[in-house]
Amino acid sequence: MNIKLTNALIPSLDNMTISEGCVIVEGNSIVYVGDTPNDNDKVYDRVIDLKGNLILPGFCNAHTHSAMAFLRSYADDLPLHSWLKDDVFPNEDKLTPEDIYVLCKLAVAEYLTSGITSCFDMYFFPDTAVKAFVDTGFRCTFCGAKLENLEEYYTTLNNVSDLITFKLGFHAEYTTPMEQMKEAAALSQKYKAPVWCHNSETKSEVEGCIERYGMTPTKLMDSIGMFEYGGGGFHCVHVNDEDADIFRRHNMTAVTCPCSNSKLASGIAKLDKFTDRGVNLAIGTDGAASNNALDMFREMYLMTVLQKLDKDDAAAMPAQTVLRAACEGGARAMGLDRCGRIEAGYLADFTVIDMHSPNMRPRNNILKNIVYSGSKSNVMLTAVNGKILYKNGEFFIGEDIEDIYTKAEGICKRIFEG
Amino acid sequence: MNIKLTNALIPSLDNMTISEGCVIVEGNSIVYVGDTPNDNDKVYDRVIDLKGNLILPGFCNAHTHSAMAFLRSYADDLPLHSWLKDDVFPNEDKLTPEDIYVLCKLAVAEYLTSGITSCFDMYFFPDTAVKAFVDTGFRCTFCGAKLENLEEYYTTLNNVSDLITFKLGFHAEYTTPMEQMKEAAALSQKYKAPVWCHNSETKSEVEGCIERYGMTPTKLMDSIGMFEYGGGGFHCVHVNDEDADIFRRHNMTAVTCPCSNSKLASGIAKLDKFTDRGVNLAIGTDGAASNNALDMFREMYLMTVLQKLDKDDAAAMPAQTVLRAACEGGARAMGLDRCGRIEAGYLADFTVIDMHSPNMRPRNNILKNIVYSGSKSNVMLTAVNGKILYKNGEFFIGEDIEDIYTKAEGICKRIFEG
Repeated sequence: MNIKLTNALIPSLDNMTISEGCVIVEGNSIVYVGDTPNDNDKVYDRVIDLKGNLILPGFCNAHTHSAMAFLRSYADDLPLHSWLKDDVFPNEDKLTPEDIYVLCKLAVAEYLTSGITSCFDMYFFPDTAVKAFVDTGFRCTFCGAKLENLEEYYTTLNNVSDLITFKLGFHAEYTTPMEQMKEAAALSQKYKAPVWCHNSETKSEVEGCIERYGMTPTKLMDSIGMFEYGGGGFHCVHVNDEDADIFRRHNMTAVTCPCSNSKLASGIAKLDKFTDRGVNLAIGTDGAASNNALDMFREMYLMTVLQKLDKDDAAAMPAQTVLRAACEGGARAMGLDRCGRIEAGYLADFTVIDMHSPNMRPRNNILKNIVYSGSKSNVMLTAVNGKILYKNGEFFIGEDIEDIYTKAEGICKRIFEG
Repeated sequence: MNIKLTNALIPSLDNMTISEGCVIVEGNSIVYVGDTPNDNDKVYDRVIDLKGNLILPGFCNAHTHSAMAFLRSYADDLPLHSWLKDDVFPNEDKLTPEDIYVLCKLAVAEYLTSGITSCFDMYFFPDTAVKAFVDTGFRCTFCGAKLENLEEYYTTLNNVSDLITFKLGFHAEYTTPMEQMKEAAALSQKYKAPVWCHNSETKSEVEGCIERYGMTPTKLMDSIGMFEYGGGGFHCVHVNDEDADIFRRHNMTAVTCPCSNSKLASGIAKLDKFTDRGVNLAIGTDGAASNNALDMFREMYLMTVLQKLDKDDAAAMPAQTVLRAACEGGARAMGLDRCGRIEAGYLADFTVIDMHSPNMRPRNNILKNIVYSGSKSNVMLTAVNGKILYKNGEFFIGEDIEDIYTKAEGICKRIFEG
């Protein structure tokens, strides 16, 4: 499928400028970005006049549990650990692989409405989840949560589709015995592969680790060789300077989840510890159970304003750092070297932002508008791997959206009332 | 104009329940809420099948400077006082009444996209601003900013339209000499009317007032009889117990502006000081220069998660308190006794929320979905005073939206480049 997108506003996140022009997609890739070419003799499958709207690299959602959508608004307003123990874990035990398949599709639909084109997922039944992503046409880097089948998933799921990548990982220090963490480290050495896990999400998690092992989770995992080939941490709220040095030394990524960390009262991440050291930052929504939305616009806004509040400095965490974390930073975390930019040679994962909405006017600074006043209501179109999966409120994900809703409601009924 | 809305989900914010039924609007009022009546013989101007979508009372945006939309994304990432002095005040001096008219219309369009049906505005040229609200069909309570014409505006602008109310007010203690504050207090006594102003927005404002007068802004104003007939404060971030007692004693409203207070690093309001005392809470977006969006969904989310963060308690500021502040609390602040509820006898200010969007599914708790995962992307329709002003992305506000955009861009060009 060849697509020519004309009259586009095209951003550079390197210098926060905008140019006007044309983007051409062939197959799954962007092959041209620049002035509109005189190619009237060439046949395109689709020519779309973007009428001065903005094309952005699709957002890379660098931490989520897609299937947790079933718990949205089920048990809010509870502290993280009792919430996990009383409301999350017992209900998750009732999930079947078929449930995961439906719930991942529901999450994909929500991602698309927010301009998100890939997600870094961690959950049960990776093989079923991955099938949902492939069937919808969505890009996913999946990350192991349990050690028992980790190597098997690693060696098989990396080969199922060009949409899917699988990374080594485990849930977190506080849920994983040392023996298993050592297994994960050994696998990372064997495959020269990065490792991912939840890290320093809450103060009590860090205090517990210090009690158990005499050091922070980051230092503990580093001490057993976990990060020799990089990787990163999800949340990274309660890190100290030594932790951040470890992130820098191993070229790791810190994935911040500002909405989830706020709603669960986990705290405000000290992101300057990472930016000061040049550590790659990415942004994750976390699951809909904790957030409760899968919306990168809300994450971007909270990411910047929470830093401003925490530092008592309205100049903290400028829009550019946020926007790059949402696009390229996430792509880098997920190992997607060809995502996160609107450039020839990159994969055609992009979203189109309506500039003809009141919250995008005036256009004093279009890219600041995206971060500071943007909303998923501005998302007109989202494409993954060269295919348009969402346009003007309609989904093209291989299954009728109302059928997905009906199945998801049925799952909730069975689990919560059954 | 009579409108029959069938197959609606109708909430009660009193007990957070939902019923299914029908809402009938006659003229500017809701005349019936309940089971769908057998009235096939009755002629309605419009019958709208809401197909299981949710009708909500329109949000009442209880603090804004609508015309400040021209400064959106013009000067971000600066501390409040230098931002006001260097970037806001000098550019505001260049605004003409005609500019205000255009910019208020731009803001109205943005309000409508977020389900907002009324605003509590404070700015220059109230008579021109009020004309913009009347011409678009939007409801506005305007509040004086300067003392010189306050009484004249109060006696004239309260009679121009049933859409418009005018309240006594002034900008803030730190921008108003004592003599003028006493004039405002005297007017409030004369007309037995409430008074409104910015109050305790920043720490330095409160410290400055204590230096100047030996007491907090709230106590100072109370000491000169400002609040004998009620009123309230915008922002109320840095209040102490004694201040909150004054709010309670005079039946005042605290208007919280969580996005603006975060983005400008002003701080997190101690809202429990108000809720513990039963003080009415309302929510304001503040102007687009500081926020930078006019979006009640973002305000509601920040209002709750910031309290959770600040109290280190994920149970703080439950969804119900937030939703009531956004609807009834705001209406009460603005003196709109017949707004803020979907009930017979109330004015027909309402919005319709699309329940067929992924972020509204599953429906474990529909009203929590609104606060925790809702977005302006879910707003299908917004009606004010019985008239539909926004539906499925289209505006019905008396002027073409593209013309408003063009004029607004022209104003910015003249002011910033001229």
